[in-house]
Parts: sequence; structure tokens; C-alpha cells
Amino acid sequence: MKLLSSLIVLSCLSTPLAAAEATHIPDAAVRTAEQLRDRALGDDTAYQFVTALTTEIGPRLASGDNDAKARAWVIAKFKTFGFDKVYSEPASYPKWVRRHESGEIISPYPQRLVLTALGHSFGTPAGGLSAEVIRFDNLAALKAADPALVKGKIVYIGFHMQPHRDGADYSTASSIRVDGPPAAAAKGAAAYLLRSAGTDAHERIAHTGVTGFENATAHGIPAAALSNPDADQLERELASGKPVTVKLDLDVGFDGEYTGANVIGELTGSKKPHEIVAMGGHLDSWDPGTGAIDDGAGVAIVAGAAHLIAQLPQRPERTIRVIAFANEEAGVYGAKAYANAHAADVAHHLLGSESDFGAAPVWRMSASVKPQARAAIAQIAAVLKPLGVEYDEKREGAGGPDLAEMHKKGMAAMTLLQDGTHYFDWHHTANDTLDKIDPKELAKNVAVYAAWTYMAAQAQGDFGSAPGAFAKDKSEE
Amino acid sequence: MKLLSSLIVLSCLSTPLAAAEATHIPDAAVRTAEQLRDRALGDDTAYQFVTALTTEIGPRLASGDNDAKARAWVIAKFKTFGFDKVYSEPASYPKWVRRHESGEIISPYPQRLVLTALGHSFGTPAGGLSAEVIRFDNLAALKAADPALVKGKIVYIGFHMQPHRDGADYSTASSIRVDGPPAAAAKGAAAYLLRSAGTDAHERIAHTGVTGFENATAHGIPAAALSNPDADQLERELASGKPVTVKLDLDVGFDGEYTGANVIGELTGSKKPHEIVAMGGHLDSWDPGTGAIDDGAGVAIVAGAAHLIAQLPQRPERTIRVIAFANEEAGVYGAKAYANAHAADVAHHLLGSESDFGAAPVWRMSASVKPQARAAIAQIAAVLKPLGVEYDEKREGAGGPDLAEMHKKGMAAMTLLQDGTHYFDWHHTANDTLDKIDPKELAKNVAVYAAWTYMAAQAQGDFGSAPGAFAKDKSEE
Repeated sequence: MKLLSSLIVLSCLSTPLAAAEATHIPDAAVRTAEQLRDRALGDDTAYQFVTALTTEIGPRLASGDNDAKARAWVIAKFKTFGFDKVYSEPASYPKWVRRHESGEIISPYPQRLVLTALGHSFGTPAGGLSAEVIRFDNLAALKAADPALVKGKIVYIGFHMQPHRDGADYSTASSIRVDGPPAAAAKGAAAYLLRSAGTDAHERIAHTGVTGFENATAHGIPAAALSNPDADQLERELASGKPVTVKLDLDVGFDGEYTGANVIGELTGSKKPHEIVAMGGHLDSWDPGTGAIDDGAGVAIVAGAAHLIAQLPQRPERTIRVIAFANEEAGVYGAKAYANAHAADVAHHLLGSESDFGAAPVWRMSASVKPQARAAIAQIAAVLKPLGVEYDEKREGAGGPDLAEMHKKGMAAMTLLQDGTHYFDWHHTANDTLDKIDPKELAKNVAVYAAWTYMAAQAQGDFGSAPGAFAKDKSEE
Repeated sequence: MKLLSSLIVLSCLSTPLAAAEATHIPDAAVRTAEQLRDRALGDDTAYQFVTALTTEIGPRLASGDNDAKARAWVIAKFKTFGFDKVYSEPASYPKWVRRHESGEIISPYPQRLVLTALGHSFGTPAGGLSAEVIRFDNLAALKAADPALVKGKIVYIGFHMQPHRDGADYSTASSIRVDGPPAAAAKGAAAYLLRSAGTDAHERIAHTGVTGFENATAHGIPAAALSNPDADQLERELASGKPVTVKLDLDVGFDGEYTGANVIGELTGSKKPHEIVAMGGHLDSWDPGTGAIDDGAGVAIVAGAAHLIAQLPQRPERTIRVIAFANEEAGVYGAKAYANAHAADVAHHLLGSESDFGAAPVWRMSASVKPQARAAIAQIAAVLKPLGVEYDEKREGAGGPDLAEMHKKGMAAMTLLQDGTHYFDWHHTANDTLDKIDPKELAKNVAVYAAWTYMAAQAQGDFGSAPGAFAKDKSEE
């Protein structure tokens, strides 16, 4: 409540941005945005960036050795990108480590299992843990189950995501991953297994991702994801009607606290330097892959867009801020730190959007802005249309997983949805590597971000950012 | 020479099979073969077989724990399949074990490498081995290299197989895998790495397979295959121009001798029980996967075909012999044992063909038979044509990797080539699992094998099998 009242005061101070007239993007800005868009399609800066990031650094597990290394790398790289300021802001989060993971079916038919511990999973006792598997059809069935049936068992849920352009199945799959282990733990389960939250069907590669244990004090249990063919195998053994015993050996767990940082690069606005157009990606990744599509691509896209804008003869009127967020994966810690640090400044965050859904082209845009800014959003949409972007006027825009934290505080936001048909084939796996990125598709994303951020930075009027402005949004993310 | 003269004697004894008249398949046999073909398409016996084999046994590394277990399983299963005889014949081979394998790039940019030791690789010293990588464009370049450049280095060759229906690139890739390590060892290399012999491009799954060290007395070195994305990563680091150092830790190697066995099931011929139509697959597999397409499918196809024939009201005139060969993967040891044990009986092996190229449909058939049997082969081709099988009259038929050993001794043979477009995506990897088999495609294979073996068993006349009969064949395999 204390925070809220201070925000209201700040909101009153921000009246210059809250003018009632329709927000408009001047013709000259539209033309420059079109040039930026077209130039981006022939520019490989972003692809070179993500190539170097995934090659020279690779996996970037938040709180792991590469957390600081990647940060130093990005700071150094940003300094070559024409930014006026490059700096970092601290963010703290639990340190979690993965040392060893293996699993096998012990009976009735011994089989090695390809699996990966979920982020924030607890470890098994040294030497592993063996227990009978109990299968539930879905999370609701687990939640409704008699604890006596669950106690001491390894809970298994086998939901198989199907591919969709908007990644629709991920909400079900991620709730099974996030909420399932705590629900199983509460009933006394020994451990938890799920079919990987992935749309691949034939790869013996498991999908990690965070589960719902916040820190070492949680009532945690070991939790892991099986590759899809291994889930098939387990289900065949369960279908035999014989009791199925699995052994898990997960040497993973929390290990104190870690302080990382968001890395920020800015092109300082030529006329309104305190007004900010924000775009971002997250620098951390899961550890099995090299974090190419999640989210090296996102950081590369926004850095590439800023790099193009930096080459214009003049700086845009407002500041363009690029944020490489820390630790999105284990709980948007960097984004929360940013939102807390900049809560008082929400009204000066004119508009924001993050790229964090791979490297395929943007196909749909939506926005949460004040009604008087709809016409300006339509101007942005018109510039993006030749890139294949459809503007869905009826849909809200939450800004992406990280900038959603600022959106929740009242920042106007867009969602620039990429084609997610194949994203979940590779998401959170060892297969998240550079070869999944098509340089031409990546360039189309840069075109989107260069164009919209430039237009927003030149807009006459604002987009409705104000403390608490979009409290009614039902966030998609 | 002693062997040869005894074969010549046997050849003279086998004159009943060597009649000069054109071999012919009676109309009634053709009609029954057509019925078997059509019945096979609705029969899931083979699919159930390979499902159970891969679920209840799984990986079947020759000389590993599952070698004997799989053999016992197949003997028990064959006894339920209507065979008149089920027995095994011993085959000995080196025992080779895989305990642990890992690798990483140490410098300039540390990266974990997904790799797998090649079969018959030597191990690294305990704690691993680190050395600079030297890249060669191909095997010829390695063979031509100055040993002073190679000595103490890790040799790397990066040939990337492209998909072809006939698997054409595998001959190049397998020579790099088989012949490369001994060539590198001869020049004093510390170890050997290759880009996996696989047509996948995006999977961090490495393809194993045997290399050219025959036993523990060889001058062996550690040898491993990188997944394709890891080969890309290594090549990017090499392209940096900086020296690239890799650490390999392979705890693998030879460990004495092992005696396994070929498992044989027979439908005893009603009129000519000593004349044999031979079909086979190999029971062993590499260890990372469950040996579904290589070659659980092959054993399932031929067992399923025999099972269908066993249900006919009468046994065919000749014996139909199904052979599940031991240890094809590490050097066709089971096939060689079979060919040695049955060398004196080559003329009584009327015709043979093995299924060992996955589970996709047969699209091309070819045969090595005597000229007077071409018309009978054309009759077989006519029955197989509705299944999509093209008869290539100009091409030889070697019988598949295992039955090629009998063909080399003079057995008439067919090659029934399956569509290999995707075979090398999964071949010799953890991804060789049941989900790669389409039950309908598998059934088409059963149709092929049921029809041809029945027709051969009923043929009037023979196909030209005789000691040394096909010595001029240039084997495709």
C-alpha cells in the first residue's frame, strides 16, 4: 500500500505523458521506420551476435559459472554497438545447481531413461531413490487423489503437447511442470516425473524448466522430465499391468543465494531522454543447450534493432532502452528486480515489448495501450504488415515474460508473437542450439523491433503508461 | 584351398538343384503368395514382436548383459510362432564395453560436447585426455598427411551425410568411421573425432558404430562421434583460427572374448526339408537406443513372415529358415559363424535375403541368381509390385549384411532395399526407438518377405546356389 500511494503521486507528476489527444506518429518517423525495417532485412548483426554468444559462452544457467561470464560478454559487446550508455542493475535469486542426473526403470523391464531434472528440483538421497510409479491423467486428478495412494510413490503425468502457432498447449504443460511437483510433495510423493513439456515426439532429449519450489525451505521432492520416447516406454511398461519401479539419481539442488544483474544498453533520447521505449530479451538460458532460441535470439534481436537505430544520423527523440534480463527462467527474477527498481518510473516507460519466443517471424501483434493511442499502434501495425504481422486489435499485449512485470505496474505494452510451431520442439533442451535459427527469419524480427521502437520513440503523445493503468489485463503470459 | 575342394565335391552332390531348365513358380504358389501378401498387410504380429522386444529387452549390445537375455527372449518367442524347430548356433566375438563417455572443448571457448564412443574404440587414460584438434577435409587428406602434423593431436573429420533413398552417403561416412581411426593411430594421433555418420542435422544425439580396431591387440586410440550440432560448434571454434583443445574421457574398451549365438527358427519343408530358403535380421543392436529400426524391425519382419506361412494348412515344400543373427554391428560375427558352419551346405541354401535397413517399405529389389532363374525372380517381382517394389534386373543382390556372408560362398541372394531416406537420422543412436516404426509400413515388409520366401520354397528348380557361384559380384554392402 505504501508503494501504491507513492506511485499515485508520481502518476500526477507524469501528466505531460498523459495528454488526452490522440497519439500520432509523424510521417517522417513512419518513413524512417520503413527504411529501418527494410535495412534490417539485409543486416546480419543479430545473427552474428547470437552466433558469437552461443559459441563463445554457450549455456547460461542463471547462478551458474556462465551467468557472470555472459554478462561481461554482453557488456563488452554492447559497448561496440553504438549505445550511449551500457550498465547493469543487480538482481538476486537462489543459486541452483545440476551436478548429475540419471534414471532407469528397474522393473518389470529394466530400461535406461533419458530425463532431466527440473529447475529448482530437490535432489535424491545419495545413491538414488527407487519407488513405484503411480500415473495420473492430469493435474486435477493428482490434486483430487487420496494421499494414501500417492505417499511414497513416484507420481507421473504424461501430457503430450501438440504444436500450435501460438504455443497454446504450453499453459497446460507448464502447469503440470510447475504445479505438479508441489502438489505431489504435499501428498507425500517420493518424487515426480512428467512427460517433457515439448512438442517433439521422437527425440530422446528431455525438456527442463522450472518447477514450483521457490527455495531450499520449500517442501521439495526430486522432479524430472522424461523425453517423449522414454515417456512412451514408461507408459508401455505401466500398460503391462505389472508394478513399475523407477530409480532416480538426481544430484541437484539449491545452494545459497546469487546476485547477478540485468544488462542495459541505451540510445539516449535527443529531446526527451527521460522517456523510455523499452525492449528486451533474457540473457540466461537453461543449461543443457546453448540458449540460442531461448533466448539468445531475443537479446540478439533487440540489440540488433538498437544497433540499426544507432546508425541513423540522429538519435530518436526518446531514449531507446535495451534490457538483457537476468534469470527469467527460474522465476523472472531479473524482471522483478527491474520492475521494483523502476516502479516509480513506470509512467516514463512509454511502451515496452520483449522478444522471448524463439527466432521465427512475428505473425501477430497486440497491444495494451490507452484508447487514444490505438491509432498510433495501427500506424506501427501498417509498417509491420509487409513483414507478415497481423494486428489483432481485440487482444491485449503483455510485453513478454519479463516486461510483463513492468506492464503489471502500468507500462503500456505490446505482444509481438513469433511463430511458435516448432519452438517447443527444442525449448529448454540440449537441442536449443544455433542451427535452429534461420538468419533471414531472425532479421525479420530485427525489422519488427527496429521499426516499432523507432516509431514509439518519435510518437507525438504517449501510450497510456501510468501506475496501475492496465490492472484489468488478463495477461497471456 | 582344402575348404574349396570340399566345396567342389559338395557342389557335384547338389546337382538336383542345378538343373539347366528355367526355374518356375507354379501358379498355385503364386496365388498363395498373393494371399500371404494381402493377409500380411492386416497382420500386426511383427509390430507386436518389435514392440515387446524393445520394451521388455531394449538395447542389445553384442557381448553386453542383454545379449544372452535377448537370445533367451527370442527363443521363447519363436517357440510360440509355430516353428517346427527353434535352436541356436554359437558365435564368438570380442567383448567390448562402454562404461562412461564425455567430452568438452577446453579452449578457446569451453563447451560441453555431445558425443559417443565408437564401438571397438580404445579408452582414454583415467581422467581423460586433452589435445589440440587437427581437422582434415576427408579420409584421403588424413591418409596423405605428414605424420609430424598429426602426432599427439585429435584428428577430426566433418563429413555430413545427406539423405538419400538408398542411403548412398553411408559408404563415405562409414569409411571415415571405420578406416579413419586406424589411419590416425598409424600417424601417432592421440584420438579421433568425426561428425556423426547421420543425416539428421539438428539433434544433439551422436551416432555410434564400429570402428576398425579388431581386438585388444590392435594399435588403437580413443575414437568418438560428435552430434551434428556439436560438430557445427567445434567447426565454429576451429574457424576462429585459434588453437582448439578438446578433452575426451572415454571409459570403454575390449574386455576378453564372448560367445553368443545365432537364433534359428524353421518351418520344415514338406517335400524337400534339406533345401532352405533363408531370411534373417540381426538381434544385436547398438546400446544407446533400443534397437527398433536396427534391427529389431528386421527380426520382426522375418519372424512375422514365417508366422504367417506357419498358419497355412500345409508346410511349404522347402524349409523356411529364419535367422536372428548375433553381433552384426561390430563385424558380422554371427553371420561369419553361420557361413563357416554351413559352408558345406551352401548349395542347399536355395535363396536368401536379410532385412536390415529399418522399417520403411521396400522399394527396390534385385537378385544375384543364375540366368535360368531370372524368370522366377520376375514372378516374385510381379507379386511384390503392388507393394511398391520395383525390380531392377541389372543390379546384383547381395542378401543384406549378414546373409552376404553366405552369398559370398555361393548362395543365390536378393536385396530387398527399404526406403532409407530417414534411416540414418536415427541409425546407431539413442533415437533408435519404437516410435520410428510405422506399423503399416512394417506390415508391408512382412508382406514382401512372406510372399518371396513362400514362392522360393515352392519353386520348380533352383536359383543357382553353388560353391563360389557369385564370386564376381561386386557387393553393394
